[in-house]
Order: sequence, then structure tokens, then C-alpha cells
Amino acid sequence: MIDTPYLLFLGDAPDALAAKVAQGIKDWRPEFALGQFRMPGCKADMGLQDMTLAEAKAAGCKTLVVGVANRGGVISESWVKVLVEALAEGFDLASGLHNLLKDEPVLVEAALAFGRKLHDVRVPEVDYPIANGKKRSGKRMLAVGTDCSVGKMYTALCMEKEMRAREMKATFRATGQTGILITGNGVPLDAVVADFMAGSIEWLTPDNDPDHWDLIEGQGSLFHISYSGVTLALVHGGQPDALVLCHEPTRPHMRGLPDYTPPTLQSLRDVALLLARVGNPACEVVGISVNTQHMGEAEALAYLQALEGQLGLPATDPFRFGAGKLVDALAAI
Amino acid sequence: MIDTPYLLFLGDAPDALAAKVAQGIKDWRPEFALGQFRMPGCKADMGLQDMTLAEAKAAGCKTLVVGVANRGGVISESWVKVLVEALAEGFDLASGLHNLLKDEPVLVEAALAFGRKLHDVRVPEVDYPIANGKKRSGKRMLAVGTDCSVGKMYTALCMEKEMRAREMKATFRATGQTGILITGNGVPLDAVVADFMAGSIEWLTPDNDPDHWDLIEGQGSLFHISYSGVTLALVHGGQPDALVLCHEPTRPHMRGLPDYTPPTLQSLRDVALLLARVGNPACEVVGISVNTQHMGEAEALAYLQALEGQLGLPATDPFRFGAGKLVDALAAI
Repeated sequence: MIDTPYLLFLGDAPDALAAKVAQGIKDWRPEFALGQFRMPGCKADMGLQDMTLAEAKAAGCKTLVVGVANRGGVISESWVKVLVEALAEGFDLASGLHNLLKDEPVLVEAALAFGRKLHDVRVPEVDYPIANGKKRSGKRMLAVGTDCSVGKMYTALCMEKEMRAREMKATFRATGQTGILITGNGVPLDAVVADFMAGSIEWLTPDNDPDHWDLIEGQGSLFHISYSGVTLALVHGGQPDALVLCHEPTRPHMRGLPDYTPPTLQSLRDVALLLARVGNPACEVVGISVNTQHMGEAEALAYLQALEGQLGLPATDPFRFGAGKLVDALAAI
Repeated sequence: MIDTPYLLFLGDAPDALAAKVAQGIKDWRPEFALGQFRMPGCKADMGLQDMTLAEAKAAGCKTLVVGVANRGGVISESWVKVLVEALAEGFDLASGLHNLLKDEPVLVEAALAFGRKLHDVRVPEVDYPIANGKKRSGKRMLAVGTDCSVGKMYTALCMEKEMRAREMKATFRATGQTGILITGNGVPLDAVVADFMAGSIEWLTPDNDPDHWDLIEGQGSLFHISYSGVTLALVHGGQPDALVLCHEPTRPHMRGLPDYTPPTLQSLRDVALLLARVGNPACEVVGISVNTQHMGEAEALAYLQALEGQLGLPATDPFRFGAGKLVDALAAI
């Protein structure tokens, strides 16, 4: 658990894209994003108030989040200087960088000296149990994809936003670095030891109110041979009541695998449902989420309409056209 | 890679069952098992020559393998004394205990002083790659089970023995602690970090002669919700050409999961084949291996015959009745 709210550290970001994590926090948890900290040369701007460390502290920020990718895989000296000052000022630090904060002796020393925490969200901080498969109260939705990086996190976040607007009980459950920084907690599933993968997802989605929905961020794909095991741990650890199929229709091959063609949505539906029903015989596929960013609007709408006819399921691009259809489908369960 | 041959350390084993690992080595790699080392009170006996450390060294043993479970999760003082002497005598140590050799400061110090290695086979010693899904030369068989602990390791080992007797090229590929100690190498898959599971199996089963078979030890089950992700990583990382279905027919529920009924062999066949063909469209299910230890001989034979009729596949208990049928089926591919 990372203490909120945040001061977003944009460092010397060379462009807006490098500050993707900060953008995600600002888009999905604006109440956590009280201000931004930029260094000379920073080319990213979240449109938040620029704050000094002291100003951010006075405004109530608890954690400085590294919301930017570093260059060349090194945490530069100029960054370290700011991060040490932040610890001295009383902030915890949180980061999803490959280079861990905990591997920087200066930061470890300062954190100890000032009694602050270093959160490296790529590394599990919990001893997860082995999954026991027991049925939990409350409901769960899992986003499953035809491939990696097709919009599973955005689908779950869009659904959460729509459900909260409708005053439904819903919690996005992060399973990757960006999602964990956005929400302040979650499981870095790709870094969990094999035996504990499914158990970590049971831990993440415990008993809840009967009308509460956990919206579980998907990872990988059952059809992506590099990461399929991670995906199946989500399907069985999450015991979803509802699956939403996620797809990016313009992709020529599976991400990182030039010899592999993405499966059809029909194949994904059949395989995912078959496996999900091992953990929850009542599981249903309720809808389709398409990432249409590479399609014109008319093309996208026609594609979605055609899909609805072919699969008999509501289909939308929740980021572009809203998640209403998907939430309607959940509400009907 | 653990240096062979071995001196098998039986310690003060309270009974034969506690020395299961030593028994496995003696059964499957008798050429590695030159002698045994027993302490006062030891109730296990592999029928091997009892040797002092000096005698074993003179006989050519390279590694002292802890072939016995420890009591109460503690490496006792009397064990540590022997293990330090073994390091001083020039042996490496290998162990599959939950308590790691590397967590005993006295052993770490002695290993350093005498220039020897400590192999804790529960812990990966290699930085595995992420799977790339490329087709490798040579052939691969994977044992998949309706449940955990149904005889997948024994199935692969029995097949290897039969294939070597027929002068076919075959290598058992260990994916668990016992298998690694038996053969001297392998991947402790349940301890590998999620993102690298499938890659570790590609690493374990590299390019080989076109007529060479890797016989890959299975883990878990696609239907066991605690470990199914580990199993799918084997299916996709192994890219098997042949699957052998493994089953234990007398089990009332899935191991450790009282609420879950084991799947039928038909379900396992269909789901495993569907998923395996993502990685290798030519994959076939070639036979069935049944653990009949809880059945009388006539009952077992009748059960196997009935299965052959129902599934149209050769069925045997390879440990009890030989692996001939399964090897015939592989030879026909």
C-alpha cells in the first residue's frame, strides 16, 4: 500500500510519452495527483500545479511517485539529489523503474535515516499464499486479451469510472506496475514466483459485499506463448463471474512473436470460458472491448457493429465511446 | 549442473519413505549412485555400499546429495557436522530441502574455504530468458495430468528407460526438485519468476537431433487452480509434439482442493491439445499413463482396456506394466 495523495515527479522527461505513468495517475486518480515536480529541461506537463517539495508537503502529499521513465537504465545523479531531498522532507518514494530504488545505497540510507519507505512496485512486497480455490463473496470481472497490450488495463479502469458514476460498488484491481502506481496497491504479477501466482490474485480480490465488483486488470494472453501461464493464473486465481474480451484488430502478429497470428475473438471466447469455468462454473463472457486507436471513427463503429452481430455480445471501445455497454452487461448478471 | 556420480546422504532417516529422493536416484540413475552414507539410527537402506567420506572420495564420488527429508524443517547440528566434513573432503553438496544449504552460515563458510559448490535445487541458478516461441529442431513429449502428483515424473522416466533400451535418442528433462537431483540438472519451475516460466522450458529443451526426444516432466495440471499457470507455461514453452495424459483414477477430489472434482481424461485431452496447438499445430495426444497403485492387477488391466476403447488411445501403467505402448506411439510420429 502506497500512501496517497502523490506529488508526481516528472524529472527531466524528454517528451510527454516518457511520463506515461504520471499521465495514467492524472487520468484515473486525479484526486491523488495534487501537483507535479519538474526539473530543468522537462518536456512533459500534466497541467498540474508545479510545486516545490516543501509546497507539496504543505499541500498534504505523502508520496513522491516517479512518473517518468529514466534514460539509459540509470537513475541519474540529478534525480538522486531530488529523491534524497524528498525523503528528508518526509515523503515516501514509489517507482516502477527497472532499476530499483532499493539498489541505490544513497536512497536506502536516506530512507532509513528519515524513517521513510521506498516502494519498488516491480518487486512483490508480500508473501503471497498458494491458491486454495475457495469461493469468495462478491463478484469479479477479468479482462482477457487476444494478445498483450491490447487495452486490458484501460478497459477495467473505464468500467470502474462508469460504475462509480452509476454509484455501483466497483474496485479496479491492479496486476501490473502502472496500475499499482495509479491506485496505490496491487500485485506485480509478472514478478511473482510461479507457485504463488494464483494465490496472489486470490489475495488481491478477497471476500466483499455481494453487489461489489472487483475489476481485475488482465496480463498477457492465453494465446501468447511467452506469458500465457501468467494469464491462466489470473483466470483461476480471480475466479471471475464475468469475462470481457479485449482485442486490437490491426495487429499483424502477436506482440514480440512474428511467427504467431493473433487468435480470433471466437477462439478467445471459447478457450477462456472453458478454463474459467474450472474455477467458477457460472462464469460468462459478457462483452467485447476493442482498442480502435488505429481506425477512423466510422471504420471503428462499423467494426464494432459487425462484431456484435457475429458474436452476439455488446462491443465497444470503452476509451473512445464509453464503457456503458459493458457495465450494462455486468449489471445484468 | 550438479557433478556426478553421487554419494547418497541418508542421514538419520526415520523410515524408508523419508529417503524418497535417494530411492529415485538409485532407481533411475543407478550409475550415479556409488554409495550411501548413513548416520546412527538411520532406518533407510538403498542396498548400496556404506561408505565413509574418504572411501566415497576414493571411489570417485563428486557430490554428496541429501537424499532424505529433514525433521521439523531444521538442518540438525549432527547433519551440519557431516556436511562440513564432506566439503572439507572435496565434495560439492546438493539438496532439495526447503531449508536452504545457502542459509546455513557454517556451510557457506566451509564451501568458500574449500572451494566447493552448494546446490539448492529449489532455487533457480540461471537467469532464464523470456520465451520467444521459435520452433526448435528435435522432438518433445510432455506429460500432462488430470491432477498434481499423478505420476508425470515416473511416466517420463519410464519412457526414457524404455527408449534407451531400444537405442532411441531420449532425454528426461526435469522440472522439479526430485527430478533435478536424479539427473543432475533441470529447471525448478515452481520457483521461477512468472515472466520467465515458459522461457525456462525453452532453455531446458533446446535444438537437438531430428530423431531426439526430450521427455519433459510435467507439473501441476491445467485443471488445478493453484498451479495451472505453471502447467500452461510447460505446454507453451515446451512446444510438445506429443502429449501423454496422466491419471490417478481413485482420487475423490483434486489434491489439496476438497471442492474440486478431477476432470475426465476426455476433458484433459481436449483442453491440453487445444492449448498445445497454439505453440505447435502438429501436436498430438499419443497415449494415456495411469497410476494404478491403488488397484488390484486384474482391476487395473480391465480399467486400462476400457480406457483404450473409450478414448482410442494406448493406455498403460508404465511403472507396473512397462512403457512399451507409449514408446510405440512416439516411434510412430
